[in-house]
Amino acid sequence: MIREKYARLAYHRFPRTTAQYLGHRQAGAALPEEGLPEFHPPPLPEEDPYCLDNAPPNLGYLVRMQEGILFVYDDQKRLEQQEPHSLPYPDLETYTVDMSHILALITDGPTKTYCHRRLNFLESKFSLHEMLNEMSEFKELKSNPHRDFYNVRKVDTHIHAAACMNQKHLLRFIKHTYQTEPDRTVAEKQGQKVTLRQVFDSLHMDPYDLTVDSLDVHAGRQTFHRFDKFNSKYNPVGASELRDLYLKTENYLGGEYFARMVKEVARELEESKYQYSEPRLSIYGHSPQEWSSLAHWFIQHKVYSPNMRWIIQVPRIYDIFRSKKLLPNFGKMLENIFLPLFEATINPQDHRKLHLFLKYVTGFDSVDDESKHSDHMFSDKSPSPDIWTSEQNPPYSYYLYYMYANIMVLNNLRRERGLSTFLFRPHCGEAGSITHLVSAFLTADNISHGLLLKKSPVLQYLYYLAQIPIAMSPLSNNSLFLEYSKNPLREFLHKGLHVSLSTDDPMQFHYTKEALMEEYAIAAQVWKLSTCDLCEIARNSVLQSGLSHQEKQKFLGQDYYKEGPEGNDIRKTNVAQIRMAFRHETLCNELSFLSDAMKSEDLNI
Amino acid sequence: MIREKYARLAYHRFPRTTAQYLGHRQAGAALPEEGLPEFHPPPLPEEDPYCLDNAPPNLGYLVRMQEGILFVYDDQKRLEQQEPHSLPYPDLETYTVDMSHILALITDGPTKTYCHRRLNFLESKFSLHEMLNEMSEFKELKSNPHRDFYNVRKVDTHIHAAACMNQKHLLRFIKHTYQTEPDRTVAEKQGQKVTLRQVFDSLHMDPYDLTVDSLDVHAGRQTFHRFDKFNSKYNPVGASELRDLYLKTENYLGGEYFARMVKEVARELEESKYQYSEPRLSIYGHSPQEWSSLAHWFIQHKVYSPNMRWIIQVPRIYDIFRSKKLLPNFGKMLENIFLPLFEATINPQDHRKLHLFLKYVTGFDSVDDESKHSDHMFSDKSPSPDIWTSEQNPPYSYYLYYMYANIMVLNNLRRERGLSTFLFRPHCGEAGSITHLVSAFLTADNISHGLLLKKSPVLQYLYYLAQIPIAMSPLSNNSLFLEYSKNPLREFLHKGLHVSLSTDDPMQFHYTKEALMEEYAIAAQVWKLSTCDLCEIARNSVLQSGLSHQEKQKFLGQDYYKEGPEGNDIRKTNVAQIRMAFRHETLCNELSFLSDAMKSEDLNI
Repeated sequence: MIREKYARLAYHRFPRTTAQYLGHRQAGAALPEEGLPEFHPPPLPEEDPYCLDNAPPNLGYLVRMQEGILFVYDDQKRLEQQEPHSLPYPDLETYTVDMSHILALITDGPTKTYCHRRLNFLESKFSLHEMLNEMSEFKELKSNPHRDFYNVRKVDTHIHAAACMNQKHLLRFIKHTYQTEPDRTVAEKQGQKVTLRQVFDSLHMDPYDLTVDSLDVHAGRQTFHRFDKFNSKYNPVGASELRDLYLKTENYLGGEYFARMVKEVARELEESKYQYSEPRLSIYGHSPQEWSSLAHWFIQHKVYSPNMRWIIQVPRIYDIFRSKKLLPNFGKMLENIFLPLFEATINPQDHRKLHLFLKYVTGFDSVDDESKHSDHMFSDKSPSPDIWTSEQNPPYSYYLYYMYANIMVLNNLRRERGLSTFLFRPHCGEAGSITHLVSAFLTADNISHGLLLKKSPVLQYLYYLAQIPIAMSPLSNNSLFLEYSKNPLREFLHKGLHVSLSTDDPMQFHYTKEALMEEYAIAAQVWKLSTCDLCEIARNSVLQSGLSHQEKQKFLGQDYYKEGPEGNDIRKTNVAQIRMAFRHETLCNELSFLSDAMKSEDLNI
Repeated sequence: MIREKYARLAYHRFPRTTAQYLGHRQAGAALPEEGLPEFHPPPLPEEDPYCLDNAPPNLGYLVRMQEGILFVYDDQKRLEQQEPHSLPYPDLETYTVDMSHILALITDGPTKTYCHRRLNFLESKFSLHEMLNEMSEFKELKSNPHRDFYNVRKVDTHIHAAACMNQKHLLRFIKHTYQTEPDRTVAEKQGQKVTLRQVFDSLHMDPYDLTVDSLDVHAGRQTFHRFDKFNSKYNPVGASELRDLYLKTENYLGGEYFARMVKEVARELEESKYQYSEPRLSIYGHSPQEWSSLAHWFIQHKVYSPNMRWIIQVPRIYDIFRSKKLLPNFGKMLENIFLPLFEATINPQDHRKLHLFLKYVTGFDSVDDESKHSDHMFSDKSPSPDIWTSEQNPPYSYYLYYMYANIMVLNNLRRERGLSTFLFRPHCGEAGSITHLVSAFLTADNISHGLLLKKSPVLQYLYYLAQIPIAMSPLSNNSLFLEYSKNPLREFLHKGLHVSLSTDDPMQFHYTKEALMEEYAIAAQVWKLSTCDLCEIARNSVLQSGLSHQEKQKFLGQDYYKEGPEGNDIRKTNVAQIRMAFRHETLCNELSFLSDAMKSEDLNI
C-alpha cells in the first residue's frame, strides 16, 4: 500500500492484480491505459524527428526551489503568498515514517520467516511446474507460427551510452578517425589548437599499433570488487584526453565522435530490427547549461534512432563538485538538474531543443559505486539540500528521495500539460547497504541490478508482490561484484520476480558484436534456460522499458497492460500461455493469502 | 616411447622436447620441418583451386585387403608372391601388447599416486605463476603492437559440416529457397518428381510460419545424457526429408542446398579474416562410390574456401549397415573407406577429382556415441575384419586400430609420392570407457573432447607429457554430458595440457552468428580467462589444426614448430613470452624428473 501511494503520485506503475487484492482499485479501470505512464510514440517515418515546430505556449509559471524541491507558482502574486500551483508535493516527514516502517518490517523476525518460506515455496512450485509442463510449454511454442526467440522484441534495459559500443568497435573507430582526419583540430589546450595527430603524438602512440589490450577498457579479474579501477577503465589507454575526445558529448568537437559511434550502434540495432536499447546519458548537475548543451548535441548530430530511448543518469558525486568549489550546496546541484526541465515544461516555446529532446527521454537513473559507505543517516532531522554545504556526500537514500520528489512534481506538471512523464529507474542493490533497496521500493518505478535482494527475504518478497521490474546484468556483476554462477537471476526468474537482461557496459564486459545476444546466450547456456524462459525475460524487458504504449501494443499485443494470460499475445511474445497462467495464478495465490490474513485480523480486532 | 613409435609410423606429431628427454632424437633435427606432417599449402590467389591438371602418373601398384588392412604390391607377380611394397605395416600383436602395457600402467597404484601428485603440483604451480606474473604478462601484451585477441588466428578445430551453420541461418536458408524456387523439383519419390512446395505441403507446413522452435534442431535440457535425442535433432522439424534435402551431399539436387549453406558460412569466415574451421564431412563406408561422389560434390559446387580445411568423419555404425544387409562384414566397410584413397594415390590420373579433393582434406575423425557399451573385448584373438560378420558393432578400440592402421599405410605410400598425409583425429573421451583414451594415446595425432581424462590421472599426465592436442567443446558438453561449470577445460589449460576451443555443432548449441567467438566469450566470462589465456588457446588451435606449414608460419611465426619461447612470435600470437617460458620450463622439469628416475633405475639394475 505504501508503494502504491508513491507510485501513483509519480505516475509510476503498480500492478493491477496487486492493487486489486489491496482493495484499492476496482477490478476494471475506467480506461484500459489508465495508470500507465505516458511516453511519446516515436515519430512516424514521414515525420522529421528533429522538427522544432509546434512547441506548446508559455504558461508563465514561476519556479522556485525550497529545501531541495522545486515549487511551481502560477504567477508572481502566488509566489509572494507562497501558494504553489495545485500539484501534489512530497512531504519529507511522511517519507521518513514510511521508510522506517519498511525498515522495521524487513528486520521483523516472524515476517522474515514468513517471506523466506513463501519464497522457498515459490521456487519449489516453479520446479514442479517445470517438471510437469516443460514439454507442453515447448509444444505451445513450436506450434506458434513465425515467432521465435530471435524475432521477439528485446530491450537492453540498462546500458550506459559511453560504453554502448564494444571495445573492438571503439578501437576501430579511433583508428578510422586517425586514418581519415589526422590533421583535424580536435582540442584546445591553453589556447593552443591541437590536432588529432598531436593528441596521439603527445601520448607517444601510433593508432595503427593500438590494440584492445593497449586500449585497456575491458574489465577483467583486476576489477573484481574494485569499482574504482572499473571507473578508470573508461579512459582509453588510461588517457582521460581520449575519453574526453571520444566518449563525451561536450568537447571541442561538440561531441561529434561520440555521436557518430552511438549512431553506428543505433544502425546495428535498427538492422537487427528486434533489438532496442535504453542508453544512459549523463547530467551531472554542476552547471545549469548541461541540459541545453545535451539537447543541442542530440539535435545537431541527429542522434535519434527509433530503436533507442534515452535515460538520464545522474552520478552521485556531489562531494567531488563541492570539494572543487563548483557547487555551494547540494540544493544547487538539484536545481541544476531539475530547473531546466521545469522551465522547458512551462515554456517549451523558448526551450524548443530541450522540449524536443525530452520527447525521447523516458527516465532518470542514479549511478555510482553503491559500496561506498556513508556516515550520515537520512531522517527528517537531516539538513535540507539548500543547507547541505558540507563536502560529505549525502547518503544514497537522500539522493533518491530528492530525485524522486522533483521527478514527481515535474511529472504532475507535465501530465497537466499533456506532456510525457519520466520514470525513476535508479541503480540499486548492486552493492552496499540493504537500505538502498528500501528507498527504491518507495521511490523507483524499477531498478537496475537488485543483487542484494538475495540477502533480504522480506524485501525480495515485497519486490515480488509489487512486481517491480529489475534489469539484471550478470556479466557486469561477474566482473565487479558477484561470480556468474552465484548470480541470483535464475532464482529470481524462477520465483516470478520481474527480471530482464541487460548489458550495462558492452565496452567493458562483452566480447562479441551483439552484446545483448551474448548476455542472453550465456544466461541460456550456463543456466540451461528454456526458450520460454528466454522469451519471458524478453517480454519483461519490453514491459520494463520506456517504449510507448503504441510500441508495446505492437511488440507484445493489443492488451499487453492486462495481467495474466489475457495480457499475453503469444504470436508476438512467444511466451507460452501455460507459463503466463502459472505466473498469474501463483501471484494471485500469494496475494490472497495476505488479503485473507488481513481480513481475519480485522475481524479479530 | 610407445606413443612416439606410433606417431612416427603414421607421420603424426610428437613434441621434440619430450622426444629429447626420451633420448630418442638429437637436439636439433636435420631439417627444421622434419617430423611434421605434410599438408598442401592453399592455392595462390591466381591459381584455380579446382584445376584438375598435373595429376601425377599411374604407378600401376595393386592393392588388396588382408585381415582389414590394405596392402600395396608393386605388380601382379609380387602380389602372387605376397611380397608387399616396402612400407611399414602395422602388427596387431605388438599393438595389443602395447595396449595392455598402458592399461596396466593406468591402474598401477604407485603410478596413479605419482601422476596425481604431479598434476596437482602443475595446477598449483600455474596458480602461483598467475599470482606473480599476471600483470607482467598483460604488460607484455599491452606493449605488443597491432595484435590482440581479435586479430590472432583461431581455428575451430572440431565442427561438423552438417551443423556448421547456426539454427537461425538454417531457418533463413530454408525460407529463402521456398520463396525463390517453390516449384523446383527437389526430390523423387517412387518415380514421382516432387517440388519444394510439395515437400512442405506433405509436411503440412508453410515455411513462412517456420521458427527456430518448430525447426527444433537446437539441443536443450532434453538432450542431456541422451545422445540418441541429440542425433535426431539433425532432422529439421523432425523430418528426415528435410535433413536429406538441406544437410546432405547426396540427394536429387546433388547436395546443392547444403553446399550453398556451407559456402555462406565460409564467406563469413573469410570476411572475419582471422577465423578458420575444420568441418567434418561423412564417409560411411557402405559403398565404394562415396568418395567419388563427395569429391564431385565438392568440385561441382565449388565448396573450396581458404578458411576451411576438411576432415572426413567415419561414423561407427557398422552394426546398422550390417543389419540392413548393406555390408557382408566389417572388412568391407574398411575397404569402402580406404581402397578409393589408395587407388587415387597410386593412380591420380584416373581419379583426378578425388586426387584434387584430397588436397584439402587433412585428416580423419571417428564419430558416434561413445557411451554405448560394447560386449566385445579387443585382443589379438578378436576376429579380423574380414571375418567380422556378426551384427554386433566392433568396440571403439577395434575401430581405432583399423582406422589408424590403414591411415598409416596410406600416409607412408603418399609420402613416398610426395603427396600430403592425413592426421587421425578421433572423437575420444567424450563419454564411455576410459580405454578409449588409451587407444587414442597410441593411434591418434590429436583428439576431440577428452573429458574423461579427468578420471584418470595417469592418462591425463601422459597426455600432458606427450602434449597431445585436445579440441574441447564445453558448450556441446554442457548440452550432452557435463555441465559447463564442471568442464575440465580451465583445469587442463592451467596444468598445461594442449587444449583448444571448438564449437562441435553451432546449429545445435550456439545462439549468436559467431559461434566460435561465442565459445571463447563464454569460456572467458565463466572462467575469467585472461587475454593471455585466450590467445594461448587460439595459438594451440592453429598448432593442432591441419593448416599447412606455410600458413602456420604466417599465423604463428617463422619458427612456430620450435617449442618454448623461441617458437613463439608474440607479434603474431599475442601470447606473452613469460607464459611460453613458464610452460616450457614446467614441461622440461617434469620430463627431467622422469628421465633422471630412468637413469637411476638403469644404474640400480
